[in-house]
Amino acid sequence: MADAVIDLNADLGEGFGRWTLTDDEALLSVVTSANVACGFHAGDPSTMRRVCGWAAERGVRIGAQVSYRDLAGFGRRAMEVPPEELADEVAYQIGALEVFARAAGSRVSYVKPHGALYNRAVADAEQARAVAAGVVRAGELCGGPLPVLGLPGSELLRAAGEAGLPAVAEAFADRAYTAAGTLVPRGRPGAVVHDPEAVLARAVRMARERQVTAESGETVGVRARSLCVHGDTPGAAELAGRLRLALADAGVGIEPFTR
Amino acid sequence: MADAVIDLNADLGEGFGRWTLTDDEALLSVVTSANVACGFHAGDPSTMRRVCGWAAERGVRIGAQVSYRDLAGFGRRAMEVPPEELADEVAYQIGALEVFARAAGSRVSYVKPHGALYNRAVADAEQARAVAAGVVRAGELCGGPLPVLGLPGSELLRAAGEAGLPAVAEAFADRAYTAAGTLVPRGRPGAVVHDPEAVLARAVRMARERQVTAESGETVGVRARSLCVHGDTPGAAELAGRLRLALADAGVGIEPFTR
Amino acid sequence: MADAVIDLNADLGEGFGRWTLTDDEALLSVVTSANVACGFHAGDPSTMRRVCGWAAERGVRIGAQVSYRDLAGFGRRAMEVPPEELADEVAYQIGALEVFARAAGSRVSYVKPHGALYNRAVADAEQARAVAAGVVRAGELCGGPLPVLGLPGSELLRAAGEAGLPAVAEAFADRAYTAAGTLVPRGRPGAVVHDPEAVLARAVRMARERQVTAESGETVGVRARSLCVHGDTPGAAELAGRLRLALADAGVGIEPFTR
Amino acid sequence: MADAVIDLNADLGEGFGRWTLTDDEALLSVVTSANVACGFHAGDPSTMRRVCGWAAERGVRIGAQVSYRDLAGFGRRAMEVPPEELADEVAYQIGALEVFARAAGSRVSYVKPHGALYNRAVADAEQARAVAAGVVRAGELCGGPLPVLGLPGSELLRAAGEAGLPAVAEAFADRAYTAAGTLVPRGRPGAVVHDPEAVLARAVRMARERQVTAESGETVGVRARSLCVHGDTPGAAELAGRLRLALADAGVGIEPFTR
Repeated sequence: MADAVIDLNADLGEGFGRWTLTDDEALLSVVTSANVACGFHAGDPSTMRRVCGWAAERGVRIGAQVSYRDLAGFGRRAMEVPPEELADEVAYQIGALEVFARAAGSRVSYVKPHGALYNRAVADAEQARAVAAGVVRAGELCGGPLPVLGLPGSELLRAAGEAGLPAVAEAFADRAYTAAGTLVPRGRPGAVVHDPEAVLARAVRMARERQVTAESGETVGVRARSLCVHGDTPGAAELAGRLRLALADAGVGIEPFTR
Repeated sequence: MADAVIDLNADLGEGFGRWTLTDDEALLSVVTSANVACGFHAGDPSTMRRVCGWAAERGVRIGAQVSYRDLAGFGRRAMEVPPEELADEVAYQIGALEVFARAAGSRVSYVKPHGALYNRAVADAEQARAVAAGVVRAGELCGGPLPVLGLPGSELLRAAGEAGLPAVAEAFADRAYTAAGTLVPRGRPGAVVHDPEAVLARAVRMARERQVTAESGETVGVRARSLCVHGDTPGAAELAGRLRLALADAGVGIEPFTR
Repeated sequence: MADAVIDLNADLGEGFGRWTLTDDEALLSVVTSANVACGFHAGDPSTMRRVCGWAAERGVRIGAQVSYRDLAGFGRRAMEVPPEELADEVAYQIGALEVFARAAGSRVSYVKPHGALYNRAVADAEQARAVAAGVVRAGELCGGPLPVLGLPGSELLRAAGEAGLPAVAEAFADRAYTAAGTLVPRGRPGAVVHDPEAVLARAVRMARERQVTAESGETVGVRARSLCVHGDTPGAAELAGRLRLALADAGVGIEPFTR
Repeated sequence: MADAVIDLNADLGEGFGRWTLTDDEALLSVVTSANVACGFHAGDPSTMRRVCGWAAERGVRIGAQVSYRDLAGFGRRAMEVPPEELADEVAYQIGALEVFARAAGSRVSYVKPHGALYNRAVADAEQARAVAAGVVRAGELCGGPLPVLGLPGSELLRAAGEAGLPAVAEAFADRAYTAAGTLVPRGRPGAVVHDPEAVLARAVRMARERQVTAESGETVGVRARSLCVHGDTPGAAELAGRLRLALADAGVGIEPFTR
């Protein structure tokens, strides 16, 4: 299994003006794909510029972390946005980020919905299609169909595929999985794996064996070309660094996902 | 003077969500350059998309009408934005509009600041340079240096020129001019010309003779490659239509300004 | 039936900064209860002050028209706001309006949710309770429990009652009713009654007989102490004036609802 | 000098949604007056409620920390807000905070402008009067004229006095003073005193002797009934605690200012 490769993605640039959240520079020395906030749940223009500049310097790929328009709720409050409006809001955010990616000599290379929009697009086919439509709308600017990063089996990835966009699945080493291979909902006991060693071991197994032990004890397959590393908790950057080392020690190549 | 040509520009897309302001479709059948609001003082993403689509269909050029971030004040309240921040806010807005211009098969072709930012950049060299820096920053995305539309003699046009951006001067047929060739400040008696016939006559003279009668009665030169048509007052679209006809009757060609 | 009395309420102050929507002064000469927007879906502070001043001059009661925080969507996009947050957002809006009501020599006398929050609170018991909790929270400032205005049979009015708040039912003369006495959902054919004469007749019957003819043709009871008059469509104020006259001609007293 | 007394005030509640800034609970065990952010530069409704609750429990007085409407700039970007609008924005914020102060069994007891509004109101008489007008407007709700906290000699305190509002001067132990008794502008070398011991010594001297050593070495008088303690830097709460102890050790009473 020497040829196992995995992408690491993290949410970055999630401050806003005076407020900071993610340790962007530290995380950018770990991940291969940076999900950059675009101003709707976080991410002021200057932060976007800086993060794009750092990402370009380090060869980290830039993705648009698109969200509902909800600074007060950090994009965590699901919203019933009419599909056309939602598609336009997604496209707007991609365009706004692309200006800074290009100025840094890079490009927006993929799109990942944030928070409530991500969760909503797992099962809501209409909103999933609206997100995909927004990404398609931005394709003319971004040099073609941008890949969409999301949960395996989600309506989001289905809608992306149907819209002609590459669909890229990701996994979470710090989240419990059900026997069906889906995430245990947050709020349920054991939904989040807090032990760092366990997280590292799960990450390595996900990357090498494409498997994880479900909460029921069964082994389930995990089809994922990227691992999501959380960046907004204390010690997040340090854990992410250890995770990268653990993967490398296990012979896993850390590389951006390909289309 | 059969070869006199002039561009007509108007502010468009200045609604926001439920609220509408400008009669976008009517104005787009009159003007050659559309200053499209980009979301900071007005202009939600869906409005931006629609206006870009209509402009592209009619062959009207799309410009980014960039503003301070101030929906509550419609961008009319001057703000002390640090230059770097201001440049980034300008670039952000251009990128957001470019996504819709491209999706419509067009491009953002120029930039015009709105409201208080426009006024501030007349005399404030630092903010003028920040606007120009933002436009330069967007150049990588927009296929090169975008022209900046503004007042002749303004710091804005000076800063644009120094930054390597084409500087395009505009005139206002419905505003009184001083003997020095500058605008009579709003609020001073006679600052705005309300008589439609007078506005038409002034427009024709500006386009054909590059002159206007100042408030003092003297004739002053008006160097302008574009006339600004106001679109946010009742009857604005109708007056704009008459102005276009009057210019055509006088043998003036209505064409987008060239770089 | 000379003793039939009814309250008339309308949404007011729904502009924001440069944008206007409702013809506030005209409507204030018609209605007895003004649902004043509080800044979350519409309603800038100066508009709030002016509307409160006009309402106080005319003896029209002031109510807080509370909403999700959503200027871009005019409060029409349902949001999954955690209950505690929602209660606080409701209280915030009431407090902000109370300052202007008091400055005008009046008081906030009731609360009516707007748009998506109104619709959501019809059937969603959790959000309905959150709204009621917010109103309770504002009671200390507002001199006791404020009445809540809503749909008969709604979770909102149930939650208000359970929280010790007076629950006041309203009816819509321009909306079709089902045989069960609920509103025909917007979007279904015939959901809105467009014929002005029919609207007037229905209003009079609702006020005098507490009945309406359902879409099925059956007569159903309408328990309502207030009629909602729409104010955000062209001709709204004029229709509202005719409705008031029609009610008066039919011997219906137009009076604010009592607790 | 056993009878020297001083008030301690700090900015609190300056998070917004997901973002936090000030260590509110720690600071509330130190200060006697809490300048609570009201939502325009920081301060979501739930934070406002929590801070008011904690302040009421500890007997700390609640003040409204009013700001320009500028979340993206944290209220640090001066804005040309027309006076009537500014007064209304000030009143709106006071009302919104009052609802939570009352719900907690307390009251808004004073007003202190934040950031750019504070700085602007030092020398700009028009904006200073607008702030005072907003405070007057809120007086009907708040049980009478609220004191205004600001810089000695500022237009703000002058305007407050002229408007019949108690004017309360504050001093800064960590800021350098000119020989004229004004603050050395930020950005000038030595404008901020970084040495904690020096800050403590200056605080004690300000409270006991009403004096401070200016940058020129001269002794200048400091008329102040409150000391401002900064809360938004790392270690701020700890330094504030030491400052309180140092004052107590020096026999200074820590008490809220009286009208």
